[in-house]
Amino acid sequence: MKKTDGSRSPVDRPRDAFREAHRSGGTSGPTGRISADELAPNFEKMNGLIPAVAQEYRTREVLMVAFMNQEAWDLTLTTGYAHYYSRTRKAIWKKGETSGHLQEIREVLIDCDNDSVLLLVNQVEGSACHTGNRSCFYRTVFPAP
Amino acid sequence: MKKTDGSRSPVDRPRDAFREAHRSGGTSGPTGRISADELAPNFEKMNGLIPAVAQEYRTREVLMVAFMNQEAWDLTLTTGYAHYYSRTRKAIWKKGETSGHLQEIREVLIDCDNDSVLLLVNQVEGSACHTGNRSCFYRTVFPAP
Repeated sequence: MKKTDGSRSPVDRPRDAFREAHRSGGTSGPTGRISADELAPNFEKMNGLIPAVAQEYRTREVLMVAFMNQEAWDLTLTTGYAHYYSRTRKAIWKKGETSGHLQEIREVLIDCDNDSVLLLVNQVEGSACHTGNRSCFYRTVFPAP
Repeated sequence: MKKTDGSRSPVDRPRDAFREAHRSGGTSGPTGRISADELAPNFEKMNGLIPAVAQEYRTREVLMVAFMNQEAWDLTLTTGYAHYYSRTRKAIWKKGETSGHLQEIREVLIDCDNDSVLLLVNQVEGSACHTGNRSCFYRTVFPAP
């Protein structure tokens, strides 16, 4: 089974690695070589979108959930910075482009049925949320105080 | 700011606490008391659904992403076990009901714009994924090996 706890060493490859990885499509899983097609997100299931979770790669804090379309996915892998698709603005959105709170990609994982992705990121300037909180999940519904 | 790193003490209240919390709607955030309405998910944004992320409350590993409708949300809070909505089967789904891989809720958080939720869970029997992997995110897209 893939080791995904806090002891995993951080990855800090140059941006070129993203372009190379994306071009070759080469990657591997716990059972060996997996083709690029097997790891392609299935955007058909939800009108061209998939949910993407951003998690801080050091603290393992979940920072936010947003959506990606094919273009946002491609831009994320080719640039090494998280890109999402804004459903309200109907446009691609480079996370932090105006605020400076960029998300540098450390690792990208895809789930078992290829309909959601997990980004392990270095959250630039510490906070992901437009409210100034580190994570968008700063309010507790349960347990009650 | 809410402290959400690994040093937060685990919560292990009895199931009754869920019913009580849900009935009263009482809860608080970093700036004090927040009303139940403020913490209600907005299901309108995506045809009655919101994405829900399940994260292991001890290891902070992201286990899976699924969707909830209002009923799944209510059942999660009233029973203390994660419930989702299956888009393919068009039905409520109690996670682990047949496999035994239940998810006991430890904490529920909602994001800044109320359109996604984060469940901190005790993953019963260790694995969330139908493949037998601990997490559904067991395949790495980047970096290439």
